[in-house]
Amino acid sequence: MAQPVRTLPGRAIGPSGAREITRALPEEWPVALVYDGTTQAVMMCTPQDLEDFALGFSLSEGMIKGAEEIRDFELVEHETGSECRFWLVAERGQALTRRRRAMLGPVGCGLCGIDSLDQAVRPLPRVGAGPCFDVAEIESATEALRAQQPLHDETRAVHAAGFLLPGQGLVLAREDVGRHNALDKLIGALTRAGIRPADGAFVMTSRLSVELIQKAAQTGCTTLIAVSAPTAHAVRLAEGAGITLAAFARGEGFDIYAHAERIREGETHVA
Amino acid sequence: MAQPVRTLPGRAIGPSGAREITRALPEEWPVALVYDGTTQAVMMCTPQDLEDFALGFSLSEGMIKGAEEIRDFELVEHETGSECRFWLVAERGQALTRRRRAMLGPVGCGLCGIDSLDQAVRPLPRVGAGPCFDVAEIESATEALRAQQPLHDETRAVHAAGFLLPGQGLVLAREDVGRHNALDKLIGALTRAGIRPADGAFVMTSRLSVELIQKAAQTGCTTLIAVSAPTAHAVRLAEGAGITLAAFARGEGFDIYAHAERIREGETHVA
Repeated sequence: MAQPVRTLPGRAIGPSGAREITRALPEEWPVALVYDGTTQAVMMCTPQDLEDFALGFSLSEGMIKGAEEIRDFELVEHETGSECRFWLVAERGQALTRRRRAMLGPVGCGLCGIDSLDQAVRPLPRVGAGPCFDVAEIESATEALRAQQPLHDETRAVHAAGFLLPGQGLVLAREDVGRHNALDKLIGALTRAGIRPADGAFVMTSRLSVELIQKAAQTGCTTLIAVSAPTAHAVRLAEGAGITLAAFARGEGFDIYAHAERIREGETHVA
Repeated sequence: MAQPVRTLPGRAIGPSGAREITRALPEEWPVALVYDGTTQAVMMCTPQDLEDFALGFSLSEGMIKGAEEIRDFELVEHETGSECRFWLVAERGQALTRRRRAMLGPVGCGLCGIDSLDQAVRPLPRVGAGPCFDVAEIESATEALRAQQPLHDETRAVHAAGFLLPGQGLVLAREDVGRHNALDKLIGALTRAGIRPADGAFVMTSRLSVELIQKAAQTGCTTLIAVSAPTAHAVRLAEGAGITLAAFARGEGFDIYAHAERIREGETHVA
């Protein structure tokens, strides 16, 4: 398999002159997701924890409903990329084929894209009650995530997704040059470890966009915590899906934009 | 049309307590790209400069070879998103239909995804000679871009793409919550202004990934300058396509990772 980090030569130009350097850069590697012999997607990933990625993508994108629907799995390395081959139980394989045919069929009236727009903003499943979190454990979770990013330490250019379990802190983290991939790797790793996304919170080094809310809702995770901003659309989706959004979480303090009821404000924090 | 920035209520939690706030957040808005009545893609965009985006996407993704292939264009607003309707000249419309049929057809042998991987890393067209740049004008271009990001000033969460013309500085900039979209908006704006991407350099606030190199090669732009890191794959692609990559460009100094021959190092900068 390709290495997640490559050291490449460059030329550094600065106030004191120019010099030859080498620098650790994150790799970006084509990964094909193939179900029963048909390619569903090719994603550009950091080539590390690809088994986690394949399982997490399959769950968060609704390709499968659970790991028990996978009959067989094989990670095949090619010179041009990695291939994640799934063989599904008959019922799920047939459902995927039907879904694929529906997606390939004529979209809308042949004159406009309004049906496609409706599909892009389809309502999300509403998540369950889920756990509550103390302010202090959310604050320490982003710091704990920062300490579990070896690829980012090397390259300064890789995102991470972590999982916060109430009372237990940050129990898992995964890295990828793409933030959606990092979350998919985390979801796959959780599932393989027998931890339900519904029992904790996703912690992201990135901003919170619509796709991350969709992945949380699809896997039943009730709380998203992020270092950067949510988009306005992400806030509306989270509100509707019952998901708690904490953003701008950078050590001391954070903002809550949806479903604040899962955050227990300590006495010292009540205004 | 939806507004590019929305002010939403939140609850800020910090060392001195909690309080109700409002915050300007970037909007993320579904935009359908529809050619001769068939939807090609739905992208999540910041709803601003969508005419630029539609034209730029069409060019950088190879949907059209030039603006003269567009017979008619209409931007239609729906409650759920915006729709960019293109009507193409007959020859181009037929070519797109053939391409779409080829993409929908059976991929590979039915057992594996190796053909899909080969498509993802297809060789890029090699760009032409292109202009050269002084070190000082590259350094000032990233600073100039920082001064042309009103949406980012409001939200701290929006990317930008700018265009540097040798001897003229940063002549155009566009913003979007997605970095690929920001570049597509810039490409569309340049084309509408009669400026060829081949005559200058793209300047990005983001990292440099494979897709940005593909968009540069497709539109003939010979130099990419970015505030953050390139991926290793992006460096290999740029090397092969003849594109100059300058990265980590944050005011004083930057690194060159491919085709340094277009950067004129001044006397004070020679090691």
